[in-house]
Amino acid sequence: MYSMALKPRPLPTILLVGLVPIACWFIARPLIDPIPPMPALYASLGMSIIAFLATVYLIPRLGPVFIAADLKGKDLLKSYNDPIPESMGLVCAAVYILLLMLFIPFAFSSSIMKRASGTDISEGINVVDFPHHQLSVYLSSLLSLLTATMLGFLDDVFDIRWRHKLPIPIIASVPLLMVYYAERGNTHVVVPLPLRGILGTLLNLGPLYYVYMSLLSTFATNSINILAGINGSEVSQALIIALSVIFNDLLYLPWPIDFRIPVYLLGNKAEVEFGGVWSAGMSYGSRELVERHLFSLYFMMPLVAVCVAFMYHNWYPARAFPGDTLCYVTGMAFAVVGIHSHFSKTLLLFFIPQIFNFLLSCPQLFGVVPCPRHRVPRFDVNANLLYPSKIIFEKPPSQLTTYVLRIFSTFGLTELTFHATSGIILEATNLTILNFFLVRLGPMNEKRLVQVLMCSQVAGSALAFVVRYGLAGLVYDGNRR
Amino acid sequence: MYSMALKPRPLPTILLVGLVPIACWFIARPLIDPIPPMPALYASLGMSIIAFLATVYLIPRLGPVFIAADLKGKDLLKSYNDPIPESMGLVCAAVYILLLMLFIPFAFSSSIMKRASGTDISEGINVVDFPHHQLSVYLSSLLSLLTATMLGFLDDVFDIRWRHKLPIPIIASVPLLMVYYAERGNTHVVVPLPLRGILGTLLNLGPLYYVYMSLLSTFATNSINILAGINGSEVSQALIIALSVIFNDLLYLPWPIDFRIPVYLLGNKAEVEFGGVWSAGMSYGSRELVERHLFSLYFMMPLVAVCVAFMYHNWYPARAFPGDTLCYVTGMAFAVVGIHSHFSKTLLLFFIPQIFNFLLSCPQLFGVVPCPRHRVPRFDVNANLLYPSKIIFEKPPSQLTTYVLRIFSTFGLTELTFHATSGIILEATNLTILNFFLVRLGPMNEKRLVQVLMCSQVAGSALAFVVRYGLAGLVYDGNRR
Repeated sequence: MYSMALKPRPLPTILLVGLVPIACWFIARPLIDPIPPMPALYASLGMSIIAFLATVYLIPRLGPVFIAADLKGKDLLKSYNDPIPESMGLVCAAVYILLLMLFIPFAFSSSIMKRASGTDISEGINVVDFPHHQLSVYLSSLLSLLTATMLGFLDDVFDIRWRHKLPIPIIASVPLLMVYYAERGNTHVVVPLPLRGILGTLLNLGPLYYVYMSLLSTFATNSINILAGINGSEVSQALIIALSVIFNDLLYLPWPIDFRIPVYLLGNKAEVEFGGVWSAGMSYGSRELVERHLFSLYFMMPLVAVCVAFMYHNWYPARAFPGDTLCYVTGMAFAVVGIHSHFSKTLLLFFIPQIFNFLLSCPQLFGVVPCPRHRVPRFDVNANLLYPSKIIFEKPPSQLTTYVLRIFSTFGLTELTFHATSGIILEATNLTILNFFLVRLGPMNEKRLVQVLMCSQVAGSALAFVVRYGLAGLVYDGNRR
Repeated sequence: MYSMALKPRPLPTILLVGLVPIACWFIARPLIDPIPPMPALYASLGMSIIAFLATVYLIPRLGPVFIAADLKGKDLLKSYNDPIPESMGLVCAAVYILLLMLFIPFAFSSSIMKRASGTDISEGINVVDFPHHQLSVYLSSLLSLLTATMLGFLDDVFDIRWRHKLPIPIIASVPLLMVYYAERGNTHVVVPLPLRGILGTLLNLGPLYYVYMSLLSTFATNSINILAGINGSEVSQALIIALSVIFNDLLYLPWPIDFRIPVYLLGNKAEVEFGGVWSAGMSYGSRELVERHLFSLYFMMPLVAVCVAFMYHNWYPARAFPGDTLCYVTGMAFAVVGIHSHFSKTLLLFFIPQIFNFLLSCPQLFGVVPCPRHRVPRFDVNANLLYPSKIIFEKPPSQLTTYVLRIFSTFGLTELTFHATSGIILEATNLTILNFFLVRLGPMNEKRLVQVLMCSQVAGSALAFVVRYGLAGLVYDGNRR
C-alpha cells in the first residue's frame, strides 16, 4: 500500500483535453478581427493554459528520468522510503520560460500591433503600441529567469551549502541591472510625506537603487527557499503571491465596466474608481501604468499555471519535490515584475509571512542560536502528526543565546524546556514559521499544516491590500507608486 | 606515476597575474578621454582577458566538485582509470555568458555613447551610436546561448541519446527567431548571378528563412558535437572557427591604416582595400556592416578566451572533459553571430571539416551502416597509438550497406576487410574524420591526431577565405553578403 505514494497522481484526461481548444482560441484571438484592445493578454492566457497542461502531464512522465539521474530524495515526514523525484521545479521553469519566449511575437510583433492599432476605439486607453524598447526589458527579464533556473538547478546538482548560496540570486539579477543601467532606468524614489521636509518629493538613490534591486531578487528568492520542508509549502507560497500580484495588476487595467470600491473606508482619501472616461481602473488614464501592469500579467499568469500544475503533484502526499529550482525561478519572477513594473514596495507587502519567517529565523541564520541541517517539524509515525522540531542543547547555551530565546519565548515564538532545578534552557523549538504554527496551534498533520501556511499567506495578502490602498494614503499622496 | 593525470596542470601564476592590470586598462579605456572611436571593443578585449583568467583558474578548482557530483568520466584512450571531471564546458559557458552580461553597459549604455560621440573625428566611420534596438538582438543572443548551455548541461546530466538530442538546438534558437520575427527581420537572400534570370536579384524566403536559421543552429551545434572523442578535439575546433570569424570581422573594421590585399589574384574582380576615405576596410563606408562585425567580435573574442583557457586543461592528456555543454554553447555562439551579423554562408565555409565529417557519418547516422555507441579510434596500450576503430559484421551486411561501404572504400574513406573466399565484408572502419585520418596517415598517438585535426581545420579556414573573397566574386556581385 505504501508504494502507492510513488504512483503518479491520476490525471482527468478528458477534462484536460477539453482545455486545448480553449487555449488555442485564446492564442489565436489576437489574429482574428475585430482585434481586442489588449490582444496579447488573450494570447498570454491561452499560453498559460498550455503551460498548465504541459507541466501537469510532463511531471509524472519525467519523474522516473529524474530518479534515474539520481535527482531524488526521501520524504522526511513520511513512513515510507520510496524515492521521490527531486528538482522537478526544473520542469516548471523550462515550460514557463519556453512559453514566455514563444510569447514574444504576440506582445512585440510589429505586424500584430499594426493590425491592432487599425481598430477604432473611440474612447478609453487602447494598449496597442507597446513600446518597442520594452522588448529589451522583457528579454532581460527572461535572461534573469533563465539564469535563476540554471543556478537553482546547479544548486540541486552540486548541493551548495545554504550559507554560500544566499548571494547566488545577485548573479541572476545582473541582466536586469545591466539593462536597467544601459537604458538609463529611473533611480528616483518617491519620499513619504513625513520625510519630505528633509528629503524633498523625489530622492535619487543612484547606485543604491541597484543595490536595492539586487537585494530584492535575493530576498524574494531566498525567503521562499527557507520557508520550505513540507509537501506543497514552496509552491503554495509562490502561487498565492502570484495570484495577489495578478489581482493587484487587474486593478490597473482598462475595464469596459464602471464600478467603484469604497476604499475610503480603509482610510484612503481618494475613491478607487473603475472605468470612467479613461476606463483604466487605477491607472487614471496613464498608459505607462497600464503597460507596466500588463507586463506583470504576462509573467504572472503562466507562473500561476505552472504552479497549479506542479501543486497537483506536490500536494500531500507529494509525488514530486520542487528542489531549489522552483524557489529560484518563482522568486526571480516576482523580483522581475516588482522591479520592471515598479511596484516593489507593494510586492514586498505580499511577502508578509516570508518576512515574519525570515525575522524569526535570523537568530539561527546568523549563528546566535545553533542551526541544525534541517529545521522541518518532527514527524510522529504512530500519531501521523507533526510536532515542532527542537534544538537540543548538549551544553548550556551562552548568555546571548539564552537572552534571545527568552525574548522569543515571551512573545510565544518558541517553546523552551528548562532544567528542573538550574533553570538552564535544555531545548527550544526551531525558529521557523512552521514550528511556530505547531507551537501555537498544537500538533497537526502535514496536510493541515500546509493549509494553515496557505491561510496565513492569504491573510497576509489581504493585509497587504489594506496597507497598500488604505494606510499608504496616509504617507503617500497619489497612487502612482 | 599514472595518477599524475589527475593532478591539475600547473598554472604560471606570475605570468597570469600580470594580465590583470592589462585587462583592467582595456576595460577602463572607454571611460578615459580621449575616447577611442570603438570604445566597447577595448572593454570587450579586457573582459576577454578576464574570461580567460577566470576559466583557466576555475577549471582545476571546480574539478573535484564536478567529480563529487558524479559528473565524471574515464578517459577511454588512456591506460589509467582516474576519473576525469566531465561537463566542464559548463564553467566556460558560465564565465562566457556572465561576462557577456556584464559587457552590456559598455556596448549599449547611453552615457558612454554620449561621451564617445562628443569626440571629434573629422574623417572615417565613428562607431559611437550603436543603435539601441541592437540591445534586444544582443539580449536574444544571450538568451539563446544560455538556453544552449542549459540544454547541454541537461544532456550531460540526463544523458539523452544522441538521436533524440539532434533537434534540441532548435529550442535554443527560439529566442533568436522570435526576436527576429518581432523586429521584422529581413528574410531576403541575394540570388547568385547564374540564377537571377529565374529568381531575380533578391529572393524573399519568408518562413523558410526561419527554418534556415534554426537548421543553422542545429548544424553548428551538432557538427562540433559529433566530431569528438579525443582530448582537445571539441575545443580546438571551436577555437579555430572562432579565430577565423574574428579574422573575417577584422577585415570590416575601420582601421586607421591604409593597405590593399591583391585578392584579384584569387579571381575577384575588385581589389580589397583597407583604409581609404572611409577607413572602413571591406565595409566600404557602410556603418551597418561595421556594426554587424563589431557585434560578432563582442561574442567571438571572449569565446576564444574561454576556449584557450579550457584547451590548456583539456590538452592531451586531458585533466577535464568538455561534455556536451561546450559543444552546445560554442555552436550556438557561431549560429548567433552568423545569423545576426548576416554572414551565415561565410560561417558555413569555416565548417568544412565538420561538413566533411557529417557527410562521412551519414550512412551511420541514418542507419544504413550499423553505428556502435562510440566511434572513437581504438587505443593500443602497448604501442601508445590510436588505430581506426572498426564495425565488425557478425552476419553478412545487406546489399545496400555493402554497396555504400564499397563506394566509400573506393574514395579511400574507409578500410574494409573481406572474407578470404566469399568476398563478404567482415569489417569496416567507422565513418568519422578521425578514423579517416588514421586510415590515410597510419596509426598515430592521440596528441598527433588532434594536431592533424587542427591542421585540417586551419586548412579549411584558409580555403574558406579563398572561396569567400576569391571565387564568390564569380557568382555574387559586390561584397555585401
